[in-house]
Amino acid sequence: MLRNYKFIIAYDGTRFFGWERQPGRDTIQGKLESVLTRLQGSPVEIIGAGRTDAGVHARAMAANAQLDVDLSPEEIRDYMNRYLPDAIAVREVKEAAPRFHARYKALGKTYRYVCFDGPVKPVFDRKYVTLLDYRPDVERMQQAAAYLQGEHDFASFCGNPRMKKSTVRLVDSITVVRQRDRIVFTFHGTGFLQNMVRILVGTLLEVGRGTRQPEDMPALLEARDRRLAGPTAPPEGLCLMKVDY
Amino acid sequence: MLRNYKFIIAYDGTRFFGWERQPGRDTIQGKLESVLTRLQGSPVEIIGAGRTDAGVHARAMAANAQLDVDLSPEEIRDYMNRYLPDAIAVREVKEAAPRFHARYKALGKTYRYVCFDGPVKPVFDRKYVTLLDYRPDVERMQQAAAYLQGEHDFASFCGNPRMKKSTVRLVDSITVVRQRDRIVFTFHGTGFLQNMVRILVGTLLEVGRGTRQPEDMPALLEARDRRLAGPTAPPEGLCLMKVDY
Repeated sequence: MLRNYKFIIAYDGTRFFGWERQPGRDTIQGKLESVLTRLQGSPVEIIGAGRTDAGVHARAMAANAQLDVDLSPEEIRDYMNRYLPDAIAVREVKEAAPRFHARYKALGKTYRYVCFDGPVKPVFDRKYVTLLDYRPDVERMQQAAAYLQGEHDFASFCGNPRMKKSTVRLVDSITVVRQRDRIVFTFHGTGFLQNMVRILVGTLLEVGRGTRQPEDMPALLEARDRRLAGPTAPPEGLCLMKVDY
Repeated sequence: MLRNYKFIIAYDGTRFFGWERQPGRDTIQGKLESVLTRLQGSPVEIIGAGRTDAGVHARAMAANAQLDVDLSPEEIRDYMNRYLPDAIAVREVKEAAPRFHARYKALGKTYRYVCFDGPVKPVFDRKYVTLLDYRPDVERMQQAAAYLQGEHDFASFCGNPRMKKSTVRLVDSITVVRQRDRIVFTFHGTGFLQNMVRILVGTLLEVGRGTRQPEDMPALLEARDRRLAGPTAPPEGLCLMKVDY
């Protein structure tokens, strides 16, 4: 019998070409689908809550797939973990309502972005932080973040130049906290555009560095022009922390 | 002028053939010496507090080297970090007394060994834990550890079959703590024999699994026979945390 399952997945995105399946390339969706296809004996499609970019990590990506297998959710989880690469782990599998759709039903997402700006590079979590060679001013970034919080047209922060649909999104919380030599940005919102978190971080870092003013944010949102925002921050510091339903 | 410097070094030992310099192989000592030799323009020897095995990590290995360079300790540190691989970081450099010797002057060492025994493999720190496919009983391991604590002849736990010198060591503290799906062993002692921490862990895990009794420890110490102890636990879970002077 075909059942709908919800998956919670953690991955170290370092060596993957992002979430989305691509022929001939290692992607998270591709790896998950090939393990599920092997389990079921026929093609399986897995739907993620979002598509993380190449090199981006996740602690709790949510996904769903329709499966016809004679196994308990725990057995499905264990089977997948046995055959997945070490950098991907299925944390949880449970049966979901037939109409549960990981992307359409997502109510919110939490992303975390970590920068390191100390004198001595980190060794053990070096693949999960973005190294800076300057020390940004956290207070200035907090001021800028306050302007960016809320419902806005984030077209200036959208990495897809051919985006046809609405670029209005609600980002209800952006926090910037220093933890010794680490700066931790946390974003929560109902949805994010392509590269949006990384462009927000790239822009906030320019504010933190002093080359841009916190008060410039309203005009930058207003402009709806990607060229006016900061660079797309590197993927390694970004991690999808949670998807709300 | 030749000065003696003390170094505190962190490394992810995964891809290295241990601390000790070996021709044609990547080792921590080898990498450090080649950077220091390049800095000074003539051969430099660096002396570590101990020799970690292939695959073992360190958060704070201590070392010393005699250098004749016109740089401040911070400049030496920054130079080294610029040229060392990402998996090695010099956390601290300071001038030491001329007679300071990282090995001979070491008063104690702290090692940590982490096992993971949960149903879902860890993703982000997967290179720093040893995976178990069973769930050992922590209380039994704590009972066994209590027998092993103290000053003993640890010949049964020595990986060097040709060890000529004394195998008596003082291990004043062995703790075993469960943290959810992780078991953390912490050892503090004045000195450790080759592979000793890993053989202690391998033996404690057998106690935790039930194939050996806590009360067997005194006889095992007494026997002074490596063949009677447990296997050498894998290197990836082991980390040198601190060296006391």
